Amino acid sequence: MTTRRQVLTGAGGLVLSVAAASGAMGLVSCAATQQKEAPTPQAVAQLQQAADAQQLPWPYKALDPVATAERGYKAYYDGGCMYGAFEAIIGELRAAVGAPYNTLPTKMMAYGKAGVNGWGTLCGALNGGAAAIYVVSDDKTRDQLIDELYSWYSQEAMPQYTPKNPKFQKIATSTSESPLCHISVTKWCNASGFAALSPERAERCAWVTASVAKYVAEMLNSNAQASFKAAHTIPAAVTQCLACHGKGGAKENVHASRMTSCTQCHTDLGPKHPGSR
Amino acid sequence: MTTRRQVLTGAGGLVLSVAAASGAMGLVSCAATQQKEAPTPQAVAQLQQAADAQQLPWPYKALDPVATAERGYKAYYDGGCMYGAFEAIIGELRAAVGAPYNTLPTKMMAYGKAGVNGWGTLCGALNGGAAAIYVVSDDKTRDQLIDELYSWYSQEAMPQYTPKNPKFQKIATSTSESPLCHISVTKWCNASGFAALSPERAERCAWVTASVAKYVAEMLNSNAQASFKAAHTIPAAVTQCLACHGKGGAKENVHASRMTSCTQCHTDLGPKHPGSR
Repeated sequence: MTTRRQVLTGAGGLVLSVAAASGAMGLVSCAATQQKEAPTPQAVAQLQQAADAQQLPWPYKALDPVATAERGYKAYYDGGCMYGAFEAIIGELRAAVGAPYNTLPTKMMAYGKAGVNGWGTLCGALNGGAAAIYVVSDDKTRDQLIDELYSWYSQEAMPQYTPKNPKFQKIATSTSESPLCHISVTKWCNASGFAALSPERAERCAWVTASVAKYVAEMLNSNAQASFKAAHTIPAAVTQCLACHGKGGAKENVHASRMTSCTQCHTDLGPKHPGSR
Repeated sequence: MTTRRQVLTGAGGLVLSVAAASGAMGLVSCAATQQKEAPTPQAVAQLQQAADAQQLPWPYKALDPVATAERGYKAYYDGGCMYGAFEAIIGELRAAVGAPYNTLPTKMMAYGKAGVNGWGTLCGALNGGAAAIYVVSDDKTRDQLIDELYSWYSQEAMPQYTPKNPKFQKIATSTSESPLCHISVTKWCNASGFAALSPERAERCAWVTASVAKYVAEMLNSNAQASFKAAHTIPAAVTQCLACHGKGGAKENVHASRMTSCTQCHTDLGPKHPGSR
């Protein structure tokens, strides 16, 4: 990890590019370039802000999980599921902490809607939740938080959080057994009877976004107090599959060391396959 | 979209939070608060930088696709596939444009490695590529670029780009028919004979990251000249499935309006299912 000092003084590219952008080209004081004139205080302030923003993790302040969920619910209708979950966390911290959170254009995360622009891949709430975790967590715990989030989402009935002023009073729940948008939504459609492009389904995803935002806030709060403990684990059935298909196995051909279910997609295992039903 | 003027003068939360963070609390000039004292030029410069950073899309400058690919290849080994593809684009623009690119902590995108921390969901190169597209593209074309990227990745043999100084001289190719990490890697393992956690597989993913970065750069360059045209489309077989399972269909239960193949997962359609093999 680059330190702020390195960014400010050593890594010439950043110094030069900030200076160029702030109209102070040629004024840069840097060991690698010839000093001509002192940079303006404004240029230094902008440099400092950019250097602070490049350092992860960003400062964390305990979040109100319900306020975070409510922000996520509202943001869903402003920019979809990934933006919703990401803006829930980052927006709350922007309000509570200020810089560097105010430099992050959270709307960029709108790309993740419906498993990335309708491709049905990763649930956008989980995509945005993981991104937010990486902004504020240290590298010793952030992956544990992601694993817990994805396992929780896959194993429990969703959505869990009911917004204070919902568009629909009641939303059915379903268990996805997967972090994928397409699987999660289809299971909900089958459980609820509503269509995949219905307003009820959109509301369900808004509640899921709020639920994810709330759970991430709770995990981050626990983690900040060094009291985080994972409540969900990788199922034994998956571990069994990975004994052959995972690292060091006889047929190490699966690049997914964490999953809630293998057999929900792999339904066609022949009778000779070990452990087949 | 909020304008810079709104951010600087109207949206009190941002103004207040920046001021608080920069130690200028109580100095803020804002219609909604009582004016006490003029903010320092440094605080104004930081506010301006934060306001600029919140505005999307960020300014674009034509990229060198090969330099972008090389940066992606190197970044893969620094922080994985998602960071690799994202840093390829944003890092090149940071060097060429400066602010606001220097405020974005691209390392946050490391979360997407191996389909998000080993979950095998969305290919991280595609996750980071889509995020980068949303940073620099307007809302009329950005979704078209994502669709082209995901279709290209799924339909063509990957990787396409050979780095200048690779760790391995030759890497086998395979066609994923899917934007998912797990499927993409398993098909490559089956085609190449290498294991999913082998150094050859890592190198393959580094080349894929470089290939994605290069293709995104080429698309963004075309788009900046208003000459972008999609070269890949959604296959007719998928369109046929969505006639019943997509919007307005008899069984609208699929939340994936774009995909390269339905039948590679849905292998168990009974003989009575329309169009089944």
